Amino acid sequence: MGRVWESEGVTAPAARLDPHAGPPVCVLGLGLIGGSLLRALHDAGRQCYGYNRSTQTVEAATASGHRASTDLIATLRQAAADDALLVLATPMTTIDDLLPVIAEQAGTCLLTDVVSVKRPVAESVTRLARGQRYVGGHPMAGTSRSGWAATDPTLFRDAMWMVSTEDHTDPDDWLVVASLARTVGSLVVPAAPDAHDRAVAAISHLPHLTAAATAAVGAGESDLALRLAAGSFRDGTRVAGTAPALQRAMLEANGIALLNVLSEAINRLTAVRDELRDRGSVEVLVDDGHRARLAYEAIAGADPVAISGVTVGDPGWAEELRRQAHRARVWFG
Amino acid sequence: MGRVWESEGVTAPAARLDPHAGPPVCVLGLGLIGGSLLRALHDAGRQCYGYNRSTQTVEAATASGHRASTDLIATLRQAAADDALLVLATPMTTIDDLLPVIAEQAGTCLLTDVVSVKRPVAESVTRLARGQRYVGGHPMAGTSRSGWAATDPTLFRDAMWMVSTEDHTDPDDWLVVASLARTVGSLVVPAAPDAHDRAVAAISHLPHLTAAATAAVGAGESDLALRLAAGSFRDGTRVAGTAPALQRAMLEANGIALLNVLSEAINRLTAVRDELRDRGSVEVLVDDGHRARLAYEAIAGADPVAISGVTVGDPGWAEELRRQAHRARVWFG
Repeated sequence: MGRVWESEGVTAPAARLDPHAGPPVCVLGLGLIGGSLLRALHDAGRQCYGYNRSTQTVEAATASGHRASTDLIATLRQAAADDALLVLATPMTTIDDLLPVIAEQAGTCLLTDVVSVKRPVAESVTRLARGQRYVGGHPMAGTSRSGWAATDPTLFRDAMWMVSTEDHTDPDDWLVVASLARTVGSLVVPAAPDAHDRAVAAISHLPHLTAAATAAVGAGESDLALRLAAGSFRDGTRVAGTAPALQRAMLEANGIALLNVLSEAINRLTAVRDELRDRGSVEVLVDDGHRARLAYEAIAGADPVAISGVTVGDPGWAEELRRQAHRARVWFG
Repeated sequence: MGRVWESEGVTAPAARLDPHAGPPVCVLGLGLIGGSLLRALHDAGRQCYGYNRSTQTVEAATASGHRASTDLIATLRQAAADDALLVLATPMTTIDDLLPVIAEQAGTCLLTDVVSVKRPVAESVTRLARGQRYVGGHPMAGTSRSGWAATDPTLFRDAMWMVSTEDHTDPDDWLVVASLARTVGSLVVPAAPDAHDRAVAAISHLPHLTAAATAAVGAGESDLALRLAAGSFRDGTRVAGTAPALQRAMLEANGIALLNVLSEAINRLTAVRDELRDRGSVEVLVDDGHRARLAYEAIAGADPVAISGVTVGDPGWAEELRRQAHRARVWFG
């Protein structure tokens, strides 16, 4: 199957290497993530267009020189005619309504998504768009702002972009989605959906709840408290400023994994409360937290090391990609 | 008593208005806060010098053109001869050892401090340096780095600097300390020590524990989790990177107030866990956290409004300053 992606040590079809040579991309939903993606693809010279249900957003996108429409059916028919890559970039709560329409109008297109959970989306696709080719994705990028006005074509540069990598994943489809992430400057992290969902519960969804609790306690103390608030409060509560509907859609879709890490956080805080009350000490949690933060900084600050010696499509390729991606400081591409 | 500080709407002695005319400042401890203060005072043209027990720090400060010494006794004798303002800028854990030496060598000097709790320091001063004139302070500025290498003369610019304002506070001493904060570009927030300690437990000390718990849970999940970690984890766990000894000294000194807000945070997280488990919803906490964050942003983003119509030293001045400072968007000076 000899796919060659030599510059990265991973072999892939030569055709996939050129971002201009990939299929057209149809982005469904032009909020912060979808809108930024459309702009980034446009800047990279990739053929792309988008759909959004809001006239205001479509007008803003069009005024900025993009192809965008409020007509879902017409957009999907165009995508089917182009054999475009469909990118589902709407909130989790809207996906079950969109999937049957996608299956009906553009059932032959390859589908990916940018939703922050992967198992529930995969299950919805199986249930509501059976037969659709699908490889999930999740760019680890965002801000607490939302909507077209917040879009930024550089949002994905150097970000980690998780691409679902299962034993049954079609290698050609996988490469098209990985190539999309590379086109906009992201690093591809191959992972299984379940492992991804547990991971983001810990490092993305739990921080929303601890930020919300910290913010609520601070605001409940006194106006003096908010007036004295400085860096630790500002940074520690930033994500609590994200639109509540978006936070709920994201967190509630990952309920089981989130329950596990939330219980662990409560246990740790309860333990430090007891330690502080009984012995006047916060040593254990402060030491553990410091070690954890240093471990994160070491990984975040290290130069990415490419996965090597894997030919996408060869027997066991998905397992081998996941295995190598699990080692610290190793990314795909 | 006609003190005039007209530009700010608060009356104060004209002599206090000129930062170059204030007393010399002797900074004890040249870490992040003390070292930055020495540099900021130096840049403002104020006569200043410092003490640090580490030869390395003193050599670094001296090499940067500052007067600094490892000889505590000689430094304090100089301060006594100069009638300098003493600024205690060492960790809370060292204060009980330093105070008797300060009282013996420089018992006539006015003393302030930059420690993040105010009631315990005031109690130590009463116990170990009885008779020393003392007005506590707390600049709300910092980073997760520490030591001379991390110092920054602009650290205090536009920061809130709490100055202890009690009914028995000497108005002349209070003005000297408030003027120090103004000299380095901070806004003065008058507050009672107990109210301050409760406030910082909520907006500074609690965030250290929620950051530590979030970091520890994230690092415990998998290497994949830390690799996928993006903005919400990076910002939400930043303060967990502060040196553990500094965090412990700060948090453990404010144990009672911290226990209260920590219990409240645990209660809120337990409530959202139950809500998520029983009804699949995180609505209450996410909404409360969002409202709280917006309230913080409104206060942080508003232009400061000066306290008005108060003559420092007139009957009831301290109470009136505290009362006005408690209203949102009102600062002193």
